[in-house]
Amino acid sequence: MSNVYGTLFKISTFGESHGPAIGVVIDGCPPGLAIDEAFIQSELDRRKPGQSKITTQRKEDDVFKILSGVFEGQSTGTPIALVIENQDQRSKDYSHIAETFRPSHADYTYEAKYGVRDYRGGGRSSARETAARVAAGAIAKLLLKKHNVEINAFVSQVGDLAAPHYTTLDLSKTEDNIVRCPDPSTAERMIALIDQVRLDRDTIGGVVTCVIKNTPVGLGEPVFDKLHAELGKAMLGINAVKGFEYGSGFEGVKLRGSQHNDEFYNDEGRIRTKTNFSGGVQGGISNGEDIYFNVAFKPVATIMQDQSTVDKHGNETTVSGKGRHDPCVVPRAVPIVEAMAALVLADFLLRDKTTK
Amino acid sequence: MSNVYGTLFKISTFGESHGPAIGVVIDGCPPGLAIDEAFIQSELDRRKPGQSKITTQRKEDDVFKILSGVFEGQSTGTPIALVIENQDQRSKDYSHIAETFRPSHADYTYEAKYGVRDYRGGGRSSARETAARVAAGAIAKLLLKKHNVEINAFVSQVGDLAAPHYTTLDLSKTEDNIVRCPDPSTAERMIALIDQVRLDRDTIGGVVTCVIKNTPVGLGEPVFDKLHAELGKAMLGINAVKGFEYGSGFEGVKLRGSQHNDEFYNDEGRIRTKTNFSGGVQGGISNGEDIYFNVAFKPVATIMQDQSTVDKHGNETTVSGKGRHDPCVVPRAVPIVEAMAALVLADFLLRDKTTK
Amino acid sequence: MSNVYGTLFKISTFGESHGPAIGVVIDGCPPGLAIDEAFIQSELDRRKPGQSKITTQRKEDDVFKILSGVFEGQSTGTPIALVIENQDQRSKDYSHIAETFRPSHADYTYEAKYGVRDYRGGGRSSARETAARVAAGAIAKLLLKKHNVEINAFVSQVGDLAAPHYTTLDLSKTEDNIVRCPDPSTAERMIALIDQVRLDRDTIGGVVTCVIKNTPVGLGEPVFDKLHAELGKAMLGINAVKGFEYGSGFEGVKLRGSQHNDEFYNDEGRIRTKTNFSGGVQGGISNGEDIYFNVAFKPVATIMQDQSTVDKHGNETTVSGKGRHDPCVVPRAVPIVEAMAALVLADFLLRDKTTK
Amino acid sequence: MSNVYGTLFKISTFGESHGPAIGVVIDGCPPGLAIDEAFIQSELDRRKPGQSKITTQRKEDDVFKILSGVFEGQSTGTPIALVIENQDQRSKDYSHIAETFRPSHADYTYEAKYGVRDYRGGGRSSARETAARVAAGAIAKLLLKKHNVEINAFVSQVGDLAAPHYTTLDLSKTEDNIVRCPDPSTAERMIALIDQVRLDRDTIGGVVTCVIKNTPVGLGEPVFDKLHAELGKAMLGINAVKGFEYGSGFEGVKLRGSQHNDEFYNDEGRIRTKTNFSGGVQGGISNGEDIYFNVAFKPVATIMQDQSTVDKHGNETTVSGKGRHDPCVVPRAVPIVEAMAALVLADFLLRDKTTK
Repeated sequence: MSNVYGTLFKISTFGESHGPAIGVVIDGCPPGLAIDEAFIQSELDRRKPGQSKITTQRKEDDVFKILSGVFEGQSTGTPIALVIENQDQRSKDYSHIAETFRPSHADYTYEAKYGVRDYRGGGRSSARETAARVAAGAIAKLLLKKHNVEINAFVSQVGDLAAPHYTTLDLSKTEDNIVRCPDPSTAERMIALIDQVRLDRDTIGGVVTCVIKNTPVGLGEPVFDKLHAELGKAMLGINAVKGFEYGSGFEGVKLRGSQHNDEFYNDEGRIRTKTNFSGGVQGGISNGEDIYFNVAFKPVATIMQDQSTVDKHGNETTVSGKGRHDPCVVPRAVPIVEAMAALVLADFLLRDKTTK
Repeated sequence: MSNVYGTLFKISTFGESHGPAIGVVIDGCPPGLAIDEAFIQSELDRRKPGQSKITTQRKEDDVFKILSGVFEGQSTGTPIALVIENQDQRSKDYSHIAETFRPSHADYTYEAKYGVRDYRGGGRSSARETAARVAAGAIAKLLLKKHNVEINAFVSQVGDLAAPHYTTLDLSKTEDNIVRCPDPSTAERMIALIDQVRLDRDTIGGVVTCVIKNTPVGLGEPVFDKLHAELGKAMLGINAVKGFEYGSGFEGVKLRGSQHNDEFYNDEGRIRTKTNFSGGVQGGISNGEDIYFNVAFKPVATIMQDQSTVDKHGNETTVSGKGRHDPCVVPRAVPIVEAMAALVLADFLLRDKTTK
Repeated sequence: MSNVYGTLFKISTFGESHGPAIGVVIDGCPPGLAIDEAFIQSELDRRKPGQSKITTQRKEDDVFKILSGVFEGQSTGTPIALVIENQDQRSKDYSHIAETFRPSHADYTYEAKYGVRDYRGGGRSSARETAARVAAGAIAKLLLKKHNVEINAFVSQVGDLAAPHYTTLDLSKTEDNIVRCPDPSTAERMIALIDQVRLDRDTIGGVVTCVIKNTPVGLGEPVFDKLHAELGKAMLGINAVKGFEYGSGFEGVKLRGSQHNDEFYNDEGRIRTKTNFSGGVQGGISNGEDIYFNVAFKPVATIMQDQSTVDKHGNETTVSGKGRHDPCVVPRAVPIVEAMAALVLADFLLRDKTTK
Repeated sequence: MSNVYGTLFKISTFGESHGPAIGVVIDGCPPGLAIDEAFIQSELDRRKPGQSKITTQRKEDDVFKILSGVFEGQSTGTPIALVIENQDQRSKDYSHIAETFRPSHADYTYEAKYGVRDYRGGGRSSARETAARVAAGAIAKLLLKKHNVEINAFVSQVGDLAAPHYTTLDLSKTEDNIVRCPDPSTAERMIALIDQVRLDRDTIGGVVTCVIKNTPVGLGEPVFDKLHAELGKAMLGINAVKGFEYGSGFEGVKLRGSQHNDEFYNDEGRIRTKTNFSGGVQGGISNGEDIYFNVAFKPVATIMQDQSTVDKHGNETTVSGKGRHDPCVVPRAVPIVEAMAALVLADFLLRDKTTK
């Protein structure tokens, strides 16, 4: 009862890592939207494994198929179902975890909650499920493009290597390197760090920053469904995320009101703010300035080292990662962050229509 | 369309700062729960203004009245409506903001979204609305107490003054001082800082940390409604919040997997983890360890200084705070954080019943 | 978890028959709607007890108070809370049913489901709760009036006395008599029948017909939330309702497709149908013709006669109605049917905006 | 935004008549349920076209495939996705309706609402979509069987040929004849009537009655989500349905309370009612007696005769049915009615857990 997301632009994902397929049903996409399949595929390609030496070497092509809701290239207002078949279903790699709980994975909690689980590749808790979100997010992006909204995420930190503030960067350069950091020199050091971590048979965390430009004024709902609260929920729902902050974030607590307040001015007829500690959201509603936020990802739990654990019978044992895993999740998390942000914005775009 | 929160333990709040009353309707509270009215009042008292020299000197007693859903001291399974009348409705203080947008408040975005707003005291965007949440949260706490779950929040940071990690503190001391920090020496410095800020006619931010003990294993829903994702949304929905992190949070990104993973062991028949970087949640589901998280609050936007702004006609002007306001919001935010956490947990407690 | 109705124009009702108050919170009413309080009161007056000799002689004035969401006579887009205090809380009348299950009432099922209930006057299951719906429905009607939509219900049957088809009646005459049937001669006989039933210390059922004119083409959502399916749910949610049919209804099953199909024609540029067996809805979506439907109400369960029953301990006993009750519910049900229809239409009006 | 049904046992259907596939995602099925695929297929076979001489001769095998949520034959608590590929996608049959609105179909209203539609075979408005509901309903039935709940629907009326009351029939005989009426002599006449209607190139309506036995006491939610209100919505959401009544229904309005009330008695420790005009539901909650209701289906709109209509440009024209269509929908509607009833009951079964 937790696989449906969104109020009006509603998605319902399904699928396990090693089942026949994963997919998503989008209910509420407005009719008449041109569905650019090449764009959807390109978004999936940004997320897929095997992209570079710093991601898992597992090969999955993540080819999607549209089953419904699109007619002659346009959305019809009916549910859009997309399916991605699982090609790489080698279950043999997972026999060692059928009964053993991997540390900091979802194995134990799923077992405790449900009493049964598809342990192959993490089953439903696998990050593979996020491919369905990326596909749905691509369609949300197509809707947002019609409204001129731009969403750009990038890797702003790996371990303790941090890029400068986004306002100093050229975000069009994000895709120029394999770590997806638009600052070339930081990118180089990040790649070297991840490579070293991989050689150490270890993993490391990082931060993805997301910037949303040209949001219309007025999106978001006050009280519980504040724009930033939904963004926060959407980001915290991504595997391995440990924190979310927007605008001034945790650093902002150190400031005084006189420093932190964003004064208004009249910019040739448009009301704008001189600074943007608010991160483009005030009272839960967009004010037209850049929306920006940071998402913290923990180090990947699967490491190529022996760790102590217990099995489902309570016996103490050890477990080690096998197969092909990411040493750092953030480069592939960039399109996922964008997709979830797009889903949030598309939903609020539709919700706002009901206040007019 | 954003004033309803929760899936099964569902609350619907209403009310403006200077309207006749604020209140909340709780739909889904299980029947047979003893409703301890003195406890609800004590929670409201922890949030109310005028508690100490470091909070606003505005006096409101926040006396609630139950209109429905309770019979002979017990919940009946029907909606519980609670109303708090607004006693201090001095609208005269607010004429200066009827047409002027206060910096970093919700005035401009509400005006842009709705075209009309109750400007008195911030109307619906006033933190006064959180009293309704505290009342509802108190009932959620009563439900959780039946299941032995304990929720304790405290002030862990004001400006750059930070308390030690919660595991080194005695959380039963939180209410011993007016800043609600259980570390006496840090508390003393925090109080002095807030007092200075107040004299400077300024404001300052802070962090509230929340610790939840004895959560049953299995609460939370995977994928979108992860336990920590709902906690994040609930916290980010509180006025002035800029960030949320749980477990290792933003610091965790610097660690390696070999440092960060929480190894399991068998603690006399109960499966536990040796460390708790996971913050009590794995795969979105509680694992029985302490759940802990941090909530960042920006400095209060209302300061007693002139600031540049524009009015609703686009004219540039200045505005200054008037009346009685908090120099720092975190001492009074502690019960709000607890209330929202209780609402999240109560909801998941009910949701988990449907998987059995 | 069942006291919230609507998707975008969402209402949450609360209150028991003999508690302090009943009320409703409306979340999602668009801003800028003029809230005509006299109109709301007039709708409540159409439902209130003690209107005429054929309704209960119980006196309740049902005076409402707006607690939020309205500023200077206009909706603000924030939740509108309305409260009606219970004046006539004479609990003494109800001691005989504290432990005894009245036949065909909700006493037994509430006790079985919740284990506790406010038995006074039926508590939450009392039709008194519908006053809250009428108040909310009045606001929905105000919204619909802006879009020219007219909703008119009337009593079309009492016992086996039936009025002619609505297309032959002048619906502006509904309020001209106390039974609310616009056909004067049928009305006269209905009144006589109800009066006789009352003298017999008995009750009788009836049918309310509702006609909605000027619905924009395109309201309603296909598949599960068809316009008529939501109307059906809304009507079946009214106390004592046993059936719902729209357009040709149950009689239509006897027809052949060649008789029943509504052929289209071009009426000076507007696409219309020659007949209207469809009842204004095709494929779950309004086609611009009159929407009309019938709602069947059973005889009121409370009769002034001894009936066999059991008490909560399983002992067989007898029970008889006491106090003041309606011999026939349909005259007072007319505004309730209209209110629920208005809530359904208002909701679909907002939902339809999201497909544009 | 209308293709999701259910609160806790939530289904999301997708697919057009002539697209690649139709399907359903079930979110909320409890874990540990044995998924009997042969049973699911047998339910689909009861609905599929081409079963007998009185249904459409169109051949579709409706073979389903499970994509997720089932592991080693058991539900895992994750979403269960089922897909049925469309085999018979002969689009050539539909060119005549690409621009012409068939009378009493959804062509015009979809065009008006969405501005674009997949006209092939009715697209999303085709009854083919109900195959997805039957598949989901089969899984709901499996859950209900664990709780001993039995759901049996049958054809009780075709045109003006009506079967006797269900209490006099042997419902195990429903599948013994092709019209699915358990009364052999009535069945014979129904079959003859449908056959004649077919020869007349016409169609005819009918009624399906559904009986639910062994429902636990306490299912259903009072006020808006009454058990019978959700059943009503679920039934009215089925294509071609014009009415719903339960228990005494529309006939009950003619009775007096003294005739209609169901007196309670103690049946060896179990509280039961002597009569069952209530139809097993009191105050919106099941009382343990048989739940029974009638569903009215209009004559199929597609007839093999010329009818007047207009095209999308407003030109008056004629249209006639082509291809293979049902002369009467009720025989194939029986499993659909059962499926929707099962989905409603399963949902309330889960919801009721949250009141304990």
